[in-house]
Amino acid sequence: MKVVKFGGSSVASAEQLVKVGDIIKEDDSRKFIVVSAPGKRTKEDIKITDLLIELGNTYIHKMDYKKVKQIILQRFNDIIENLALQLSLLDEIEESIDKGLIDLEYNLENIDCLKAIGEDSSAKILSAYLQKLGLNARYLNPKQAGIIVSNEPGNAHILPDSYKKIQTLREKEGIMVIPGFFGYTEEDELMTFSRGGSDITGSIIAAGVKASLYENFTDVDSVYKVNPTIVDNPKEIRTLTYKEMRELSYAGFSVFHDEALIPAFNAQIPVCIKNTNNPSKPGTMIVSEKKQDEKCVVGIASDIGFTSIYISKYLMNREVGFGRKLFQILEEEGVSFEHAPSGIDDMSIIIRESRLGSDKEEIILKRFKEELQPDQVDIHRDLAIVMVVGEGLVSTIGVAQKATTAFAEANVNIEMINQGSSEVSMMFGIKKEDLSKAVRSLYYHFFE
Amino acid sequence: MKVVKFGGSSVASAEQLVKVGDIIKEDDSRKFIVVSAPGKRTKEDIKITDLLIELGNTYIHKMDYKKVKQIILQRFNDIIENLALQLSLLDEIEESIDKGLIDLEYNLENIDCLKAIGEDSSAKILSAYLQKLGLNARYLNPKQAGIIVSNEPGNAHILPDSYKKIQTLREKEGIMVIPGFFGYTEEDELMTFSRGGSDITGSIIAAGVKASLYENFTDVDSVYKVNPTIVDNPKEIRTLTYKEMRELSYAGFSVFHDEALIPAFNAQIPVCIKNTNNPSKPGTMIVSEKKQDEKCVVGIASDIGFTSIYISKYLMNREVGFGRKLFQILEEEGVSFEHAPSGIDDMSIIIRESRLGSDKEEIILKRFKEELQPDQVDIHRDLAIVMVVGEGLVSTIGVAQKATTAFAEANVNIEMINQGSSEVSMMFGIKKEDLSKAVRSLYYHFFE
Repeated sequence: MKVVKFGGSSVASAEQLVKVGDIIKEDDSRKFIVVSAPGKRTKEDIKITDLLIELGNTYIHKMDYKKVKQIILQRFNDIIENLALQLSLLDEIEESIDKGLIDLEYNLENIDCLKAIGEDSSAKILSAYLQKLGLNARYLNPKQAGIIVSNEPGNAHILPDSYKKIQTLREKEGIMVIPGFFGYTEEDELMTFSRGGSDITGSIIAAGVKASLYENFTDVDSVYKVNPTIVDNPKEIRTLTYKEMRELSYAGFSVFHDEALIPAFNAQIPVCIKNTNNPSKPGTMIVSEKKQDEKCVVGIASDIGFTSIYISKYLMNREVGFGRKLFQILEEEGVSFEHAPSGIDDMSIIIRESRLGSDKEEIILKRFKEELQPDQVDIHRDLAIVMVVGEGLVSTIGVAQKATTAFAEANVNIEMINQGSSEVSMMFGIKKEDLSKAVRSLYYHFFE
Repeated sequence: MKVVKFGGSSVASAEQLVKVGDIIKEDDSRKFIVVSAPGKRTKEDIKITDLLIELGNTYIHKMDYKKVKQIILQRFNDIIENLALQLSLLDEIEESIDKGLIDLEYNLENIDCLKAIGEDSSAKILSAYLQKLGLNARYLNPKQAGIIVSNEPGNAHILPDSYKKIQTLREKEGIMVIPGFFGYTEEDELMTFSRGGSDITGSIIAAGVKASLYENFTDVDSVYKVNPTIVDNPKEIRTLTYKEMRELSYAGFSVFHDEALIPAFNAQIPVCIKNTNNPSKPGTMIVSEKKQDEKCVVGIASDIGFTSIYISKYLMNREVGFGRKLFQILEEEGVSFEHAPSGIDDMSIIIRESRLGSDKEEIILKRFKEELQPDQVDIHRDLAIVMVVGEGLVSTIGVAQKATTAFAEANVNIEMINQGSSEVSMMFGIKKEDLSKAVRSLYYHFFE
């Protein structure tokens, strides 16, 4: 019994949905289908979810929301028409949009009802199309599926009790098509997961029904050993552990949502990343354990957009409570940090720029200076992070040597090394402008 | 105007004090002399300060303290007799011991009055000897010198107001011999610095009188590039910056007391480490800035006795406040940590074993498990730390490569790398048993 999730590009057009239908038809163990909202058809296209957010914003600000609504309906109309489905489906979608706008009127803070319409409509369209193909398929609302979530608009979390209800789905006949991205609170209010959260729905269903496999269909043949926009035609990764995937996705590998790994990881459900446009390819398997081969490094991840705050104070390491005070300031300002490497008398706090903003930055620097009385506080912007990832890496002699050689040969200065806290990765901080040449050199040293 | 400090071995015997006298006579800018208590004359010998602590303990516990007192007096007697000084000096020392025992009777908690007698007697003996050599020298009590300290027995800190008083010493005639290691509170109570604190006194005086140089006489020709017990006849370091010295002394370089660098550093007084037994040697200069040469690595320090606590929790880095909670537990248990490198979902806390103890260890592990709800908590004992130290190291391409190559060639697995938080060092964690071969390999790669 498999759970299969199709991402935004897989449901972006009628043409794509035909491929989806073929994939489902081909394997009758594909019983639970989770779908995203229609994504981009071309690079310039706008995702349905973004259009829905725009619809909500124009409506709240009393701008011309009807134009946006029309664009959304046109997109769905194209799909429905080209799949030759009943046009009453479009009326149903329009009704849900109108209902979403009324809900928004009552609670301007919560746009989730509108945001969820993309996935919900996708699921309705796909189930109608599967029925047309002669399959015993039906749309299943997340409430019926048993997805009960916390009351956190835009960032809901599954409640543990959900899994019992979800498990009962095993007994049901036929194919169930479930919209991803949202669930309902115990008070019956619709809440979405964080953005990209259809992966989470798929993982929750897979864990709940104890699936033999969770297939995650995207638009790439596999997870690559390195970012393909930096290295041309990089090698594919056949098998990854959950931990490796987590580290890679942290630093720029965006194939799979962070949080989505948790339910699959906890229930030990293997995950397979596959390509809707090339379904015969084996894809990448994510599993809990894999045979350790000699080449322990599995991939190189990289990401930009980090800031480092450097604090130095003589005899800092003798001051019981220094670390706590510093982290308390960050907590009080609501800023989560990525890393906090420390020397004897110095500490650096690495923060994602997106979580900082210039206002917060100023406040934090001021508080650090006043409350910690350091000798020096500096801020370094435009840092990039490079992660060398692989199970067994910490206990293999020579990995650090190979990595640092790659940086030196690319003439890149290493601003920061953080190894040993993670069991499966080694992290390097470098200047943003050095990123491409560093990553290429690492790829060459580890995989060529 | 120089401040000169002589360590325990330099004042351990009459023979050594003759050398001290020669050194002072030779350069009439050596105006402020700070002395330690007599140290070991041979490897098996006991330091006077340790004997004084034993005297206090035997006295408190009503054991045979008179025997210990006799041993102490005999040591001073030998020095006084061999320098042919007046024996009334010995009576004075005995009086101060008896007075110290009475003070102890009133306050069993505070043994500082006894502990300070070693330095105080040294200063009295040396000033008498310098007078005998025909020099205009005199004993100056720390109270007269203006050393006002905080009320922290055994761990006093200088109060900032002291410096104004100390500065007036510049105007005084002749050589002043000041006992190191202690000062007086504003309530006129004697308090010692932390152990080895004569270095601190010297540094305070040097900063206060704005000395041109603070000479610190020990029993080694210089600071070496690596621990001489690991590498035979290592190269000497000619010039070090304060920051480099601090990093080296953190990990095993014990030539100079940690805290002693602060006053010199703040007042920008250069420090020279020299050998009483070989005063013509240039020694090692510690300065605020030095010319940067190509070889940016100045020394390799290493130390054992570290424990690492590893904590892993999925999505830890999204949990605002996780770091603060963890450090709060450490603070509440009174445990200061050395480093806290963190991965995405993991964090390691490196603690000196001496600060942990098995009781505390158990409590901390329990609290981590209960209060942080981590997925995993592990403890790794017997870690060694190796530091590669040098100004300019962080901005020099290839240093990490050289270091990691040295580890790999010695067949040593690197458990931890911490680079980038400190501007002048790169830190490696390895297994204790790998320490010697790793350090030898690093020395070979960087200095041979």
